[in-house]
Amino acid sequence: MDHLIEKTISKKEIYKGKIINLQVEEVQLPNGNTSSREIVKHPGAVGVIALTKDHKIIMVRQYRKALEKILIEIPAGKLDAGEKPIDCANRELEEETGYHATSLEYIVSFYTSPGFADEKIYLYFAEHLTTGVRKPDEDEFLDLLEVSLEEAEQMIDNEEIHDAKTIYAVSYVKGLLEAKKSN
Amino acid sequence: MDHLIEKTISKKEIYKGKIINLQVEEVQLPNGNTSSREIVKHPGAVGVIALTKDHKIIMVRQYRKALEKILIEIPAGKLDAGEKPIDCANRELEEETGYHATSLEYIVSFYTSPGFADEKIYLYFAEHLTTGVRKPDEDEFLDLLEVSLEEAEQMIDNEEIHDAKTIYAVSYVKGLLEAKKSN
Repeated sequence: MDHLIEKTISKKEIYKGKIINLQVEEVQLPNGNTSSREIVKHPGAVGVIALTKDHKIIMVRQYRKALEKILIEIPAGKLDAGEKPIDCANRELEEETGYHATSLEYIVSFYTSPGFADEKIYLYFAEHLTTGVRKPDEDEFLDLLEVSLEEAEQMIDNEEIHDAKTIYAVSYVKGLLEAKKSN
Repeated sequence: MDHLIEKTISKKEIYKGKIINLQVEEVQLPNGNTSSREIVKHPGAVGVIALTKDHKIIMVRQYRKALEKILIEIPAGKLDAGEKPIDCANRELEEETGYHATSLEYIVSFYTSPGFADEKIYLYFAEHLTTGVRKPDEDEFLDLLEVSLEEAEQMIDNEEIHDAKTIYAVSYVKGLLEAKKSN
């Protein structure tokens, strides 16, 4: 695969932030020419697809400053330094929703924006939930919702649900509930 | 929904690049406290789910510098300034694969990383393809592949396919082919 690989010639740190870092790399292309790549470094994240006993999906409504818009999303959050994705998933589910999962099943992981960022998100599935106390981060404000599959599909249509992980989550739940029905 | 909204107090441009810009905003939280938000501005993108007559999915193999990794993805690319997503989808499909779609159907759009970026990707579906000549960007090196649904699912398992839009695309094709089978 050497005919595809870009080699780093030099790397410049542009910004080190609370959550993301930005660097610009000068690279040698496979044909010997040079180009630059703008790269956002991110710690990675998890999302939790949590289903109540009556097949409602647990969601949070949250303002997203990057979009200047309120979105409805599955509970999710960034990995702390050295934190295992599954521990992060348990933590974020409890912090954001108050629900505790007796077990979490790993579903899939994906890079969100491979063209410019290294963010990778891990998705977990949870059933058999017990309730506890919500304790969101001090700069995090969110509403808790439980929505049926039909409601979630409508929210995709009207773009209240409008992010990659949550749209994936809804299609996952759809497949799961169809499989349960046909069993 | 005022109990969720964050108001901009000030905005600082950190970086203006070829593809992304970075800004840091100081915001007033719903409880009156202040915090900062790191925001990556991106022009938006499209991805094309293109299916050949014998139900192969058209993919490109490409090195992603942000990940230091080769990925297999659906054809995709950034919106040019003022470009309509559907025009971008036609353009990127032709540039990256040489295929031309007689018609493109809009499927869904989603934000890839609402926590820190405004990138929105629009996905289109194409059948009835005609072949032409590939003309990738001068700093773009990629292999063209046609993969069956089963091969694509295996590529997800072994993480050769590992990004949000392509994983969504594979689940879309799965649903489509199942629907065709049962009709």
